[in-house]
Amino acid sequence: MTVAIVGAGPGDPGLVTVRALELVRRCEILVYDRLVSAELVAQAVGATRIPRENLNQDEVNDLLVHHGRRGRRVVRLKGGDPFVYGRGSEEVEALTEAGVPHEVVPGLSTLTAIPGLAGIPLTARGVASQLTVITGTSGDGSDLDYDRLAGTPGTLVIFMGLNRLETIADGLILAGRSVDEPAAVLSRLSLPGAKHRIGTLGTIAGVADGLPSPSVVVIGDVVARGGSRREQLSRLRRLAS
Amino acid sequence: MTVAIVGAGPGDPGLVTVRALELVRRCEILVYDRLVSAELVAQAVGATRIPRENLNQDEVNDLLVHHGRRGRRVVRLKGGDPFVYGRGSEEVEALTEAGVPHEVVPGLSTLTAIPGLAGIPLTARGVASQLTVITGTSGDGSDLDYDRLAGTPGTLVIFMGLNRLETIADGLILAGRSVDEPAAVLSRLSLPGAKHRIGTLGTIAGVADGLPSPSVVVIGDVVARGGSRREQLSRLRRLAS
Repeated sequence: MTVAIVGAGPGDPGLVTVRALELVRRCEILVYDRLVSAELVAQAVGATRIPRENLNQDEVNDLLVHHGRRGRRVVRLKGGDPFVYGRGSEEVEALTEAGVPHEVVPGLSTLTAIPGLAGIPLTARGVASQLTVITGTSGDGSDLDYDRLAGTPGTLVIFMGLNRLETIADGLILAGRSVDEPAAVLSRLSLPGAKHRIGTLGTIAGVADGLPSPSVVVIGDVVARGGSRREQLSRLRRLAS
Repeated sequence: MTVAIVGAGPGDPGLVTVRALELVRRCEILVYDRLVSAELVAQAVGATRIPRENLNQDEVNDLLVHHGRRGRRVVRLKGGDPFVYGRGSEEVEALTEAGVPHEVVPGLSTLTAIPGLAGIPLTARGVASQLTVITGTSGDGSDLDYDRLAGTPGTLVIFMGLNRLETIADGLILAGRSVDEPAAVLSRLSLPGAKHRIGTLGTIAGVADGLPSPSVVVIGDVVARGGSRREQLSRLRRLAS
């Protein structure tokens, strides 16, 4: 295997997988996302370390294919999971088209890990058995189908929706969702500067105003299950050696 | 911290987190789910190892509280992620009520890891930006709101739905979803005996007939992105030391 598309998890170096750490330690070329922890990047001793932020997606693809064709041990280290809002499939397709052997190592997705760190279950028996995930990245929030979303049972998670949270919350309320429904904004969890705010659909945009990205928004009764675990949020874990 | 509620990931011991492995290696009491790998359980050298399968949920809660109160280092090792169809919140609530210090260590959820191992992205730019997850555990499949689900854009994932896949697929088709929509059943991925089948909404129940549990069903155009990665499915990783 020459190229590995590897999920680094939500940021805390202790939340990387054993397999990912092993690949990072052995690699010759490391291409890494901005939110990957410095401690994890530092494990690639002797590797050429290339930050992704200076490259566009085509350039990343070309880089992986270039070094993969030469048989180098390449790790493409991505925040969270490569296949959940991670564009991993674009890199996999470029490698496949070029005939370069590769593997995918899933990582802890922000989707599940961040609510977990905040003590908020995405599903809970008798509370929520369905989970719906949307992204706030395209458009201004006015493009979402609020009538459908408002009637969807269970937990609603919004990725990258902090900037349009007011529009989204108003849209859901106007479409019939209760203003009193619990809501949480989890900002930079497992990263330095982690913050979170708990409110309701009616208050959350105001309560979360000014929080830094990246963030995950959770809406639903599961949020009310999370209060007891708040003390965990500020604790950082260490990379086991 | 005395009690840790820890996600073990989908089964492959290499897909456990560094933090989880560290906690398992140091614990005095290990309470573990059936699908947690034997290699990982074996890392709890010197610990009292208690399989969960002989206990009901109340008994598990009581066990964690009992040993937690005595200050023992307890690890409750759960398949996947504790908070995604994992009942982790019930254990956390029991510990909170009893005043026992505890932490949650998220694990790779089957939800994201299993499609990832099969090369199927849950979201992909221009293909699917919304993800909906339902469970087939309650009822016979006739309780689902097919009209709503059929109109939901993006990727649909069904947990524990293999036994009622025919009912669910028929319900979606009758409600207007295309019989030609790509669908995949991923059975026991990252575990011994892993199998998968690719089909369409119209064929998948027949194609997947007889596959063993646990399984994840993925419905949507993202499935068509996964074909090139099938060779990865049978490969097992090892636990790095």
